[in-house]
Amino acid sequence: MNVEVKRHSLAHILAQAVKELYPEVKLWTGPAIENGFYYDIDFWETVLHEDELKVIEKKMKNIIKQNQTFNQFSLEIHEAIELLKEEKENYKLAIINKLKEEWEIEISFYENINQKRERVFLDMCSWPHVEKMSEIDVNSFKLDKIAGAYFQGDSENKMLTRIYWLAFDSQEELNNHLVFLREAKKRDHRLIWKKLNLFSFHDEGPGFPFWHPKGSIMFNELVKFMQSENKARGYDEIKTPPVLNEELWHMSGHWANFKENMYFTEIDDQKFAIKPMNCPGWCLVFKTQQFSYRDLPIKNAEFWLVHRHELSWVLHWLFRVRSFTQDDAHIFIDNEGLPKQIEDTIKFVEDIYKVFGFEKINTFVATRPEKSLWSDEVWEIAQKSLEDGLKAAWLDDFKIKEGEWAFYWPKIEFNVEDSLWRNWQLWTIQVDFSMPERFWLFYTWKDWEKHTPVMIHRAIFGSLERFMWILIEHFNWSFPLWIAPEQVRIVPVMEKANSYAEKVKKELEEAWIRVEADLSDDWLNKKVRNAEKQRVNYILVVWEEEMANSTVSVRNYKTKDQSSNSIEEFKNNILEEVESRKI
Amino acid sequence: MNVEVKRHSLAHILAQAVKELYPEVKLWTGPAIENGFYYDIDFWETVLHEDELKVIEKKMKNIIKQNQTFNQFSLEIHEAIELLKEEKENYKLAIINKLKEEWEIEISFYENINQKRERVFLDMCSWPHVEKMSEIDVNSFKLDKIAGAYFQGDSENKMLTRIYWLAFDSQEELNNHLVFLREAKKRDHRLIWKKLNLFSFHDEGPGFPFWHPKGSIMFNELVKFMQSENKARGYDEIKTPPVLNEELWHMSGHWANFKENMYFTEIDDQKFAIKPMNCPGWCLVFKTQQFSYRDLPIKNAEFWLVHRHELSWVLHWLFRVRSFTQDDAHIFIDNEGLPKQIEDTIKFVEDIYKVFGFEKINTFVATRPEKSLWSDEVWEIAQKSLEDGLKAAWLDDFKIKEGEWAFYWPKIEFNVEDSLWRNWQLWTIQVDFSMPERFWLFYTWKDWEKHTPVMIHRAIFGSLERFMWILIEHFNWSFPLWIAPEQVRIVPVMEKANSYAEKVKKELEEAWIRVEADLSDDWLNKKVRNAEKQRVNYILVVWEEEMANSTVSVRNYKTKDQSSNSIEEFKNNILEEVESRKI
Repeated sequence: MNVEVKRHSLAHILAQAVKELYPEVKLWTGPAIENGFYYDIDFWETVLHEDELKVIEKKMKNIIKQNQTFNQFSLEIHEAIELLKEEKENYKLAIINKLKEEWEIEISFYENINQKRERVFLDMCSWPHVEKMSEIDVNSFKLDKIAGAYFQGDSENKMLTRIYWLAFDSQEELNNHLVFLREAKKRDHRLIWKKLNLFSFHDEGPGFPFWHPKGSIMFNELVKFMQSENKARGYDEIKTPPVLNEELWHMSGHWANFKENMYFTEIDDQKFAIKPMNCPGWCLVFKTQQFSYRDLPIKNAEFWLVHRHELSWVLHWLFRVRSFTQDDAHIFIDNEGLPKQIEDTIKFVEDIYKVFGFEKINTFVATRPEKSLWSDEVWEIAQKSLEDGLKAAWLDDFKIKEGEWAFYWPKIEFNVEDSLWRNWQLWTIQVDFSMPERFWLFYTWKDWEKHTPVMIHRAIFGSLERFMWILIEHFNWSFPLWIAPEQVRIVPVMEKANSYAEKVKKELEEAWIRVEADLSDDWLNKKVRNAEKQRVNYILVVWEEEMANSTVSVRNYKTKDQSSNSIEEFKNNILEEVESRKI
Repeated sequence: MNVEVKRHSLAHILAQAVKELYPEVKLWTGPAIENGFYYDIDFWETVLHEDELKVIEKKMKNIIKQNQTFNQFSLEIHEAIELLKEEKENYKLAIINKLKEEWEIEISFYENINQKRERVFLDMCSWPHVEKMSEIDVNSFKLDKIAGAYFQGDSENKMLTRIYWLAFDSQEELNNHLVFLREAKKRDHRLIWKKLNLFSFHDEGPGFPFWHPKGSIMFNELVKFMQSENKARGYDEIKTPPVLNEELWHMSGHWANFKENMYFTEIDDQKFAIKPMNCPGWCLVFKTQQFSYRDLPIKNAEFWLVHRHELSWVLHWLFRVRSFTQDDAHIFIDNEGLPKQIEDTIKFVEDIYKVFGFEKINTFVATRPEKSLWSDEVWEIAQKSLEDGLKAAWLDDFKIKEGEWAFYWPKIEFNVEDSLWRNWQLWTIQVDFSMPERFWLFYTWKDWEKHTPVMIHRAIFGSLERFMWILIEHFNWSFPLWIAPEQVRIVPVMEKANSYAEKVKKELEEAWIRVEADLSDDWLNKKVRNAEKQRVNYILVVWEEEMANSTVSVRNYKTKDQSSNSIEEFKNNILEEVESRKI
């Protein structure tokens, strides 16, 4: 049974319970959402206390145990209005009155029928419901939280009480979700930033992350990794300036379509914009040279910051920022070569995500919207190229997002599932016939004629900032060695071993291993605990035996394995683990 | 004899020659400059042609051969005005009339006296001159160029003709300079950018460099090099956002003192600036943690772009840009530790410059200006720290720049001399007692009291953009292997060797060597010439013998040495040369 059907049914059961307990309430709406449902209710003068929520929950369970049934019926719109008047559901009436001239269809209702075959509750609803309430496990749902919500989301209107519930198919699934929530909370990068000291945010730059030394190490490792992967695939890096003049953004179409998300400045009385995307600058670089079909594809990559405005109330730590670093790339190619480039790009994406243990990738292809700038011919080329590319990459279980192609170009979207089974949209592959035309880009074809290239836009991490956020939570901030800011902590048992600790540190540092030595006066246990709190990958305890044999006692934070190695052995193990990018 | 004396004398001789040839001219002024002198002259209706310049030169030589003498005399200001009226020198009169009320001193003139002891020319001048014209070598000066120049630099005034001359002590020195100019012209990075394809500039971003793939390789190599040198010396990298709000720049003092050089934007109706310097952002990061004296020094480095406005007419390719990447670093330290940090920083600077063959470093310490914000005590600490640091680094042949310390902090300046004996000021070490106080930074001292740290600002490359410019000209764009954008070009003699060329290419690429194979249909000689034009460090010619023996024929572009190596041998040689950063 579809869990959404249960969630919709439970929303009615909640409303019924509330109306029985507080007859004066007025209902607004109760949709199913991810992980459960909510209901917006006007409690009049009652202020809901936590204790009362438990009473509501108990009431709901009682109703289910009575095994009422749901019965659907439909009414003409004027009949529906009469019925809602009877029920005194003013909020529902307000909407149905507004819509009545547009609506020619019938209105669907569900009534709750008790064992005596009496109607005990009714609600306007067109979604399917369970037949009998006994189909619902009374232990499969749980109150989540309450919040305020304006009627119809308009702050001019009255604020209603929104009650959120978690609801699943079974008690087991609910429990799994509760475990997930506890885990997610522990990993929440907002709670741990002070501990980890990776980054900070400041009022002086809302939405602009400040990267601290440890965060910069991780950031730089990700960039270096992508640079070498790019290089191995024939991408060339370029760097285009962040500030470019108004004309350019008119030419690219951003002025017309993206202005609200851009920041502006003035130089010598001329208007300039801070770049929200790299592509227009890249078109200028493309134009400095003359290319023939033999030179294609031209594959460029860039890592400099872009700026895009976000409303202050949607800013959300590293997840939603106003300045970010894309691992951006653009491929200029002819129509014939397009599917091969898309195939290569998809394989590239898969290769990279595997390195981080994102094995499950969900792929979406968005289809043509009703309103679209391009000719049928161009859309056919684009659509076919995307499909061919996906099939060639053996990725033919993609889903379709009807009509969700971007206004100017078609795209493939990739979602990954992290270690907490959450889905993140990382980035897209977009096929763009528009920008190269706007910038009069061309290459010379075999017939010596000038042709316009297609431009593929792609980023794999997407925003480095957001990717870092996902990694922090995905790895529960116990990072793979190659990106870990502190790979090794040396812990001398007592002061006598300090100089040996420093010697080991120096030797590891010479191999560019990121290592610290804790030479504080703390006791051994405290030193080890401190290192564990920071989730340092390897803790090396050194004392008389290690000093005598030139060894180190190794504790692996993740596996809890302990071993004794010579310094050389340990160093080689570390370098090998870094090299292999083991998770 | 001071060459400046000759240059001043020659300016008078030029003026005399011009007046004899064109009696209607009016003189303005003729100062000595580096490498020669110029004179601004109003030629009335005459438009000077190149041919006429040779006539002037000939006339000058004739005057010198007559061995006229210079005679100095002084006049009261009213007498001077009378004399200039007689001479009809309206420009000089205009100035002297303006100044007469302020001037209480006498005005100095020089007259040129011929063998008959007659005055044949006179000019207002207070600089020393040669006694007899025979002291000047008639072959030691040469016309350089002519240009337009407004009277008093004001575009409302008439445009005069400025004639530039090169002038040295001897013919030999002049010739050396001409050789230098020819060399410099050949290396001029502006002439070769199209050939080299390292970077470009576009009207859409005046003063903002676009880095092409090859330029990005060099840029990234320099950054990677500095990152590893920083790391080896205990610096941590951080990244602070480019856009920060108005308040921050008030706090830092930039709003009051640097506003003219900054770009601004608006977010949510609040004013923000694009950072011209990194330091204020670093102070915010410093404040996120609590440091004790044991944690000092805190050494941070950053490589993100800064923006500083420059007037459009002073923009000069990579040398003077509006956005640039500093290899910036700041050291927070206590007063006691200051000299040691300065010493270390100076040694760091020397280590880096040596890698690029800048063996000669000229050091300047700027002394306290008359107007200064800081107490005597603070200046004494600063001055002593700089001196102690310099002495400890055995760099005690520094020169003093009287009163040239920056308004808010004292500094050491480093100039390097390049392979064309030109001096470039790269960057400074600045000791700053101001910024940490403005941001209320502190650390806890041994007495548990809060103390304000000192902040050292330093950059070694200075601006990466300008440093690249210097390297291009210094190395005559034949770069050391480790920064060369294309290290190896493989040239198969004919098509039959193409697949062998690709095999060699692949093998070298796997060792991250930057290599291209020329598989075009061109003849061998053309292929080799093309590689040489690009100054590729190594050209590998491959043909039947090489294919049979798995070898390559190696041509070293710089030394012109030729040899035959196995692929493995060649690869190891290359990796070794890169590793050693050989010049």
